[in-house]
Formats: sequence, C-alpha cells, structure tokens
Amino acid sequence: MYRSHTCGELRESNIGQEVTLAGWVQTVRKFGSITFIDLRDRYGITQLLFGETLNKELDEQPLGREFVIQVSGNVLERTNKNPNIPTGDIEIEVSKFNILNKAVTPPFTIQDDTDGGDDLRMKFRYLDLRRNAVKRNIELRYAVNRSARNYLHENHFMDIETPFLIKSTPEGARDFVVPSRMNPGQFYALPQSPQTFKQLLMVSGYDRYYQVVKCFRDEDLRADRQPEFTQIDCEMSFVAQEDILQMFEGLIKRIFKDVKGIDYTDEVERMSWNDAMLRYGNDKPDIRFGMELVNLKTVFEGESGNLAAQAIFEASGFKVLTEAETVLAISVPGCSEYTRKQTDELTEWVKRPQIGMNGLIFIKCNADGTFKSSADKFFDEEKLKNLAAICGAKAGDLILILAGREERTRKATSELRLEMGERLGMRRKDEFKLLWVLDFPLFEYAEEENRWVARHHPFTSPKPDHIPVMIGNDPAIKDAANYLSHPYANIKANAYDMVLNGNEIGGGSIRIYQRELQEKMFDALGMSKEEAQHKFGFLLGAFEYGAPPHGGIAFGFDRLCAILGGSESIRDFIAFPKNNSGRDVMLDAPASIDDKQLNELSITLSV
Amino acid sequence: MYRSHTCGELRESNIGQEVTLAGWVQTVRKFGSITFIDLRDRYGITQLLFGETLNKELDEQPLGREFVIQVSGNVLERTNKNPNIPTGDIEIEVSKFNILNKAVTPPFTIQDDTDGGDDLRMKFRYLDLRRNAVKRNIELRYAVNRSARNYLHENHFMDIETPFLIKSTPEGARDFVVPSRMNPGQFYALPQSPQTFKQLLMVSGYDRYYQVVKCFRDEDLRADRQPEFTQIDCEMSFVAQEDILQMFEGLIKRIFKDVKGIDYTDEVERMSWNDAMLRYGNDKPDIRFGMELVNLKTVFEGESGNLAAQAIFEASGFKVLTEAETVLAISVPGCSEYTRKQTDELTEWVKRPQIGMNGLIFIKCNADGTFKSSADKFFDEEKLKNLAAICGAKAGDLILILAGREERTRKATSELRLEMGERLGMRRKDEFKLLWVLDFPLFEYAEEENRWVARHHPFTSPKPDHIPVMIGNDPAIKDAANYLSHPYANIKANAYDMVLNGNEIGGGSIRIYQRELQEKMFDALGMSKEEAQHKFGFLLGAFEYGAPPHGGIAFGFDRLCAILGGSESIRDFIAFPKNNSGRDVMLDAPASIDDKQLNELSITLSV
Repeated sequence: MYRSHTCGELRESNIGQEVTLAGWVQTVRKFGSITFIDLRDRYGITQLLFGETLNKELDEQPLGREFVIQVSGNVLERTNKNPNIPTGDIEIEVSKFNILNKAVTPPFTIQDDTDGGDDLRMKFRYLDLRRNAVKRNIELRYAVNRSARNYLHENHFMDIETPFLIKSTPEGARDFVVPSRMNPGQFYALPQSPQTFKQLLMVSGYDRYYQVVKCFRDEDLRADRQPEFTQIDCEMSFVAQEDILQMFEGLIKRIFKDVKGIDYTDEVERMSWNDAMLRYGNDKPDIRFGMELVNLKTVFEGESGNLAAQAIFEASGFKVLTEAETVLAISVPGCSEYTRKQTDELTEWVKRPQIGMNGLIFIKCNADGTFKSSADKFFDEEKLKNLAAICGAKAGDLILILAGREERTRKATSELRLEMGERLGMRRKDEFKLLWVLDFPLFEYAEEENRWVARHHPFTSPKPDHIPVMIGNDPAIKDAANYLSHPYANIKANAYDMVLNGNEIGGGSIRIYQRELQEKMFDALGMSKEEAQHKFGFLLGAFEYGAPPHGGIAFGFDRLCAILGGSESIRDFIAFPKNNSGRDVMLDAPASIDDKQLNELSITLSV
Repeated sequence: MYRSHTCGELRESNIGQEVTLAGWVQTVRKFGSITFIDLRDRYGITQLLFGETLNKELDEQPLGREFVIQVSGNVLERTNKNPNIPTGDIEIEVSKFNILNKAVTPPFTIQDDTDGGDDLRMKFRYLDLRRNAVKRNIELRYAVNRSARNYLHENHFMDIETPFLIKSTPEGARDFVVPSRMNPGQFYALPQSPQTFKQLLMVSGYDRYYQVVKCFRDEDLRADRQPEFTQIDCEMSFVAQEDILQMFEGLIKRIFKDVKGIDYTDEVERMSWNDAMLRYGNDKPDIRFGMELVNLKTVFEGESGNLAAQAIFEASGFKVLTEAETVLAISVPGCSEYTRKQTDELTEWVKRPQIGMNGLIFIKCNADGTFKSSADKFFDEEKLKNLAAICGAKAGDLILILAGREERTRKATSELRLEMGERLGMRRKDEFKLLWVLDFPLFEYAEEENRWVARHHPFTSPKPDHIPVMIGNDPAIKDAANYLSHPYANIKANAYDMVLNGNEIGGGSIRIYQRELQEKMFDALGMSKEEAQHKFGFLLGAFEYGAPPHGGIAFGFDRLCAILGGSESIRDFIAFPKNNSGRDVMLDAPASIDDKQLNELSITLSV
C-alpha cells in the first residue's frame, strides 16, 4: 500500500503518529517559507504542512493542482482548527514527499461550483467524477443499491441473472439489436426489461426474484432519457396486489431510512387512477401540496363536472366556457393580490407551445370579500362568489381557470398546478411523499389502428372481477366512434405505480398466469396466433406446466436516486451517461466499425 | 398471500395449527380411501393427507404432477416420520383445496435423476430449473454473489455501474456490436469487460470499485464457453501486487466460509509462471496432488533439463529421446502392476488427436526392486534404475515418459498428469486448493505478424524493474528467428492469476498509469499513434490529469460457482444459458428481424 491512512481518517487521537498518505493536490497555499497543501482522496481532505526545508524542494519540483503525491510525516495538532471537515483538528508535518504522477491543468476546476460547461464536463467525465457534487451522487446510488439488496435479501428474494442477448419482440418501444456472426442474418435483441424471464422464474418455482439490472430502449431520446438505464426488478409468487404493495412500500421506506435517515412512518396513500386524473390531472400526482383540480365541466371517464358551475356558464353566455369540452380550476392560496403584470405572465405561460392553451381566466378572491376577474364582462359579483364557493376558494386565493379539449386542458391544468406549487415553495426537496396509484385501465385505444394497446404491458392481468369481461367479449372494435362503450374500455388492470413527489419511481402488476387469458390478451392487441407463438411461444408453453399466480414491480433506479439526491436529472447519478443524442462523448461512441467486422456479421450499410 | 407458510417451514412446534400452503404437486400416492400428496415449493416439501371426504373430490378433480394448488388444513404429527426432510415430522390434514393452475404432463421428470436429455431440458429450461439439482446451483450462485458483495462492501469497495453501449476496440477477442439508429452507419459495442472504465474510475479517485457484471465476447464457442458471461470485477488505487493478492485471497476465503462452510486457513501458495510450466506443464496447475513433471530434456525458457538423463539417452542410442526437443516424465504412484492392457490403453490415450503424441514410454518400478520398461531394448536394469532415481520414483510407481516438440509434449504431459490424478482419485471435489501464479511474461510472440501481443491485455504494467527495459528498447523484432533474444521477450508482467483446483478463476494486474508507458505499450503491439488515439484517446488523456497507481482483478463468476458446486460445466450454474452455437433454444434466439427494423438501422443483410 502506498498509504497507512486515507485522507479522511486522521483525528486528534492520531496526533504524534508517523503516517503515509497518498492522494490528489486540491490546493497549494504558499506563505513565505512554508506551504500548505490540501490533499484529497475519496474519503476526505487532509492538510499537509511543508516546512522550510521541504519548501525549497517544492520550488524545484512544484506541485500543481491534481498532481498525485505520496507524503510521509508526523500528525500535528492544528493551531487553526477547521470544524467544517472531519480531519480539521490535525495536519501532517511532511518529512518526505514523492510525486506519483503529474497532472496538466484540468480544463475546468474540480470544485462544487465548477467553471466547466456541460459538454466539457461530459467529454472529461473522469475529471467531472472527481467533483464532490458528483461523487456524492455516485455514493448515494451505491447506498440505495446496497439498501435495496439488503432488504430484498432479508425478505428471501434471490438475485438471479437473466440473459442480455435475447430475442427481438418489439412491443411498444424499439429494441436494440445485435447481429449474430455465427447465425448469419439473425439478430439478438438487448432486453427492454427482464419481464418474461422473471415470469419464467416464477413458473420455475423461484418464488422471489430480484435484480439490479441494465435495460435498453432504442427510443428517440427526450431530455433526461438514457438508451441504457437500470431497474430494480422484482417478482413474487403466490401474491395478490395487497402483498406487493406492502412488500415494496417496505422497500422504499427501508431505503429512506438507510440512505436519508428518514423514518417514513406515515401510511402510504393510495389513489385510483381515476381519482388521480380527476383531482390532479395526472397519473403521478405530487401530493406534497393540495391545490386540487376542480372539475367544473368535463368529459373525463363519464364525469360531467359541476352542474352548478355549468349553469352559471350558460347564464353568462361566455362561449369559451359553454363550448369547451372541459373547464378546470385551481385555487392558488395567497395570490389574490397578483398584479396585472403577474397575471399576464401566467397567461403567457399557459400559452407557450409546451402547454398549448389559448388563454387563462382568473378570479381574484380579495381579502376584503370582493372579487375581481378577467371575465368580469361575463360574471357579476354574485356569479364570481358562487364560482369561488364551488372551487372551495378562500379569501386571498387566486382562482385559475383553463378551458378547452379534455386531454390538453387536463394536462395543462396539472402543469399549471405544479408550476404554482413550485413558485410558492410547496415542493420541498427534503420532503418525501409516497403514493400508490391503482386501478389503471388495462387498455388504451389506438385510434390509427382502431385497436387496443396494453397500457402497461401485455402480461398485466385484469382485476379478477374483470377477467370474465375480457374472456367473454370480442376485442374487435366495430364502432370506432364509440370505442368507449366497448366492454374492454372499462376493464381495469391489476396494476400499480409508486409515485414519489410527482415522479413515477416504480410500476408493476399482477400477471396473467393462464394460457387462455394470455392468448386472449395477445388477440386483443391485434397479434395473430402465429405471431404470438413466434414471439412468446415459450411463455405460453410455460403456462401449461403449472404456472403459479405471481406479480412484481420494477423501480427506475436512476430516477429514484436522482429524486433522493434532490435532483431533476438522472444523468448526474450515472457514472458514464450518454448525451441526448445517445452519444458517449468521452468515448466518442457510437463509431464506425471496420469492413472486416461488417463482413463477418454478414451486414452492409445502407447509409 | 396465497399461503400462511412455505412448504419448507412447518415443524413439530406447529402441530395443531391451521395453515394454508401453496405449491406444486410433486407426487400423488393413493392408498384406498386416502391420498398422500407431496407439495413442493422453493423452500421444501410438505406431505399432505387427503382423508376420505376429500378423496372423493380428488376423484372428480384429479391432481396431476406439477399442478399448482392451494390447500388449507391442520398440522398433524406424522405417525411415520421422515428424518430425511426438515418437515418430515408433520403432515397437513387437508380440509380444503383449490387448483390454482393445471399442468400437462412435463416432457421429462422433475427429479434429480431426470429422464430428459440435454436438448429437451434446454428447450424447457423453465422446467429444468425446477429440479433440485439445478435449483441448488442457482442458490449457490446467489450465495457466492452475496458473500462477495458483503466482503467487498466491508472493505470499502463501491459497486459502480459502467456502460454497456460502448465503443468497439477489438483487441484480441471480437466485439458484439449494436447498430445505432440515431447515428446511421455507426455502432456501439458491448463490453468485453469494464477494463478501461474501472481504470477511469481510479483516475476519478473512487479508490475501490467492484461490479458483478455481464461481459460479452463474440468468439467461436468452445465447449463450456458462453457469449455472455459474468465477472466479479474489481479495481483498487494506491496498491502494489502484494496488496491485491492479500485482499482477494481474503475474498475467496470469505466465499469458502460463507458458501461452503470451509475455513481455508492454509496460506495460499504462490508460484511463478515459469515454475508452474516446468513443474506442471501448465499455467493453472492443480496442486491438490503431486506427480510433478520431471524435465529430463527441454528447451523451455532456456532450461536444459536433467543432464544425467540425457547422458543415459545418448548412451542408449534411443533416437526418440535423443532427437526429441523435450522429454518429460511423471511418476504415477502405485501403478507399477498395470497390465499390458492398461499400458496399451494409456498409450492409445496419449495418441488421441486431442493429445497428439506419437507414443508413450513407461518404466514399471516393481515392488521387488526390479524394473520393467516398454524400452527394455534400449535401457538395461542399471539405466532404468538410474532413470527412476532421477524421476524420484519409488518402488510401486509407474513412470510415464513423453517425448517430442516442446509445446505439445509439455501440454500432453500436463494432461496425462491430470488424467492419472483423476483416475487415482487425487482430484477430490470436496478439496479446494488455491494458488497464485505470478510473473507471467508481459508479451507473447505472434509469428504470423512478427510482432508482440499482450499476454494479459494492453493495460498490464511490466514489473517495476522491467519498465526501463520496455521504455529503452525498440519493440520491433528485426531477427524473427531469434525473437527470444529480443529484450522484450524477458519482460515479466506485474500480473497474477488465481487458480483453484486446476482452473483459472481470476486474473488481473497492476496497471500502467503513465501516458508514456501506455503509448510505448500500444507501439509495442503494433498500434499506430493515430489508432491508439482513436481507440483509447480517452484513457491516454485521463493519464495526463493525475492518474494514481492502481491495479485490479476479475473473477470468472460462472466458473467459480461451477467449481464450488463441484461441476465441470458453467451452463449448469446459469439460469438461462446458451448452447454451444450461441443459441437460446428456449427463446429460439437469435432470430430474423423485420425489414422495418433493418431499414431504421440503415443496414441490409448480405447473407
């Protein structure tokens, strides 16, 4: 070993000892005939004191930032203690030093507030990883990993590795494929998830499975998506939904405790997908704050909204509202005194293309009991008062109303709610609120193809009560205009999402485990018997040999770490991430390959 | 939950309790009006007793092998206890049962001694995985995984995930590549190992890294090779070879303890590569038994072998021996009474194409002090006695002598030694002997290209003493015939292999961490400056910014598990393995993909 101690280890109790340290030069501070150097390694920073003799040697062999050095010396008590770092009580009086490796000046400073831009830091990721801010993220990631493994182990889950070179069965997302040299013209696919394998493991009787595993999706990358990402992937046999919810809220609570020191003793809230959409306009609501949506008028899932409000709209003749499919409101607390400039800015905000509304109606519920609205023309004081009462607004609130097509309006109101919550400081990074969202629709309607698609994936079971509906009806949609009246439109999935602070951190379902039902599902998704057999014959086969009831969940590990680390960006929590074009700019990958390689793989480029 | 207890859980203390179990029907035994069923799950087997009433129900709803059922009933003390299973004291008097899923008759029996052939079991891997023999292997694998992680965690290693979609830098083995849709004509590669990433993590100051990680090599598959395999991959900073040896023999000892209950207190033996080759003819010797090679005549690494023996060969005029490049002998204990049939069979054994020798010479050292040889024509009693003394043979030994070209003869003698050890029961599956093999040559000579290739990989450092030899000499080989006299031929690597019972289970090295030396290495391997920059520019760059001394090791996880499980085959320890053509016969992968997929990837087939 090049060291007797790490740079984070020495304390007052070590004073008087001869030690050897090795690490990186963080700073060099010369004071006349003596020099102080902060030496850094993964574990901390230790102050080195170079006295008069060595100071001269330092002049001959100057130490720059990020040089790697080894020093020996005596542990002294510091005269000027630094209470901010664990080694702040001591310093090393260096008797000998040795340059292990020099360093040229880094392209950016290795500090929390670095001067390096994003591109530069990605190119020199190995230097960016030295910064404390990034190091803490990677350490947190490991702590989450370790905590999850311990919990799952204690609950009898087994880590079983599933293959990476599998078969392409594109269903929703695109597969990354791998040409096979030994089987010319054939391809492996990289797994989008180990879904079918973990189900097979249940069929094989392994009872409880987990894996912290890389998955791959060849999607057009949106901000903060990665082509390769990590899941905490779990599956259990002989369970119903309730068993899964309890087991895995236990997992997240354990991670809170181990990683953040948080005792999450609150019961985890549960909400149906329907309620989440009605109350928050969103299937992953942030429930750290209220400001719930008031459904004044809607077509959502057969809801009509508030009839009294609609009577007021009719009476006022305000066509924007009478003709709108959906009218939604939120009451923003304490904002009744917003200025014209502020309400104009909010109007601009909802008109941005990302939100896409035509305008914003507001009602100020003034502290003195009067009302003021952007629609004063249509609503007299009495109507405004009634609307405010319908919205549950209190004096001092600012009611914001959006109107338009159902889907867009609901989404926009949800975004507006989150924005106002953010502006009012209601979304605190150090507050964590878990939520189970339940009872999702099993199917979504795909208009272009006039067929059903699986909302979760084709292996998700309907609610037990809904199985006969699924088995007993023809999935074909004869009347496209009225697809909502097809029996399949109301089938709910035995599925659940775990939501943390407005982010979906995990999702799963109780699976189909009967061949007949699985075949019906493939049929419902427009897959022919032959296609189903070609793609999933092994699973259909497995279900014939005694498949147990089973279900599971997968957590987005990158996202979970980011939220626990108080960040919006998963990239900060991945050691070697790719950029938004799927490139690794450090490696400069992907890249062209040799003709020899192409020939061996029996493929040619058609670029 | 479908159960109150597992099938492995109930004991005498549970007698009288009402319980619910769920699992698979292992066997059905009818005795007149009652029926016994063994119910199986991952945790064990519990006997169920169906009394008179239920027996009738069973007639209406017969339960077959591998049916999945749920039963409720009372825990009874068995009259006929089974001491062979942990639940053998009790049985369940079933009051209610419920078929959760039926099963058709499996294509082979789910038992230790199954009647299923290899192909059938691979196709129905999900059924094969139910067999106890396979389940034990998968459980052992998890135990090894868990033990390794715990040890590494306690020693401050961090699990840091490295990317799977990287850059193709074929060097030795072929890469699997992945066409990039978003970057037409460009490809990612799947990692052959995380080698460069773990080195970058050391440059980034992470100090101690590990990962249990999938790696990929597109090689022509030999028996028991897999295109995807798992490594326990580790790296440490500020270490010399001795630190690594101690840390990682600690890891393996911990695994022995946790997984096998073995206290491996012996010091782990160490041997130079040179000694291993001379004494065992093999760089991964099985040291559970002696029977070492006697180098009667050789050209290995400048050794001449035993001169007295060569004098005897000359005097006898036995051209097979006088003209051979190498003559090697082993003394097989207690086999002097081998019959003609037995020695003939051994002769045939060495003449098989896999061994490839022309013949075998033996000397029987009879118990009465006389000698008898297949070369009596050339050697009188006195010469045989002297040769036996040179070979260190005792009365009762059978000396086996092989002669021919150095490389083939050494390999053949090594194989013969292992074969004789096997036949004599000296290679016990329950005996474990570790060995470090050290001081490998840094380079191997590639005749076709008349250049050096890296024996380990291009990042392995020479022994510190040998660095000046490497830096100070031109790697070009001017005189191909005398490549052995080139200074590079004698450079030893700062590398180490861990050998367990004759299998290499891990290997690693102290790495190059200076840009100049790394460039010299690439130069020595015939890589141009441009090529080195294109392939490994990021690493050369990283070495400029303060790279610490570092080194590491990678263990072949599949192989390690197989040896600990007493098996020769890694396939038995992989949940979903591929066959020797790299196919997953269960999935039927690889497979053809859609033209749409090919088009999106901008590739066409040239099959």
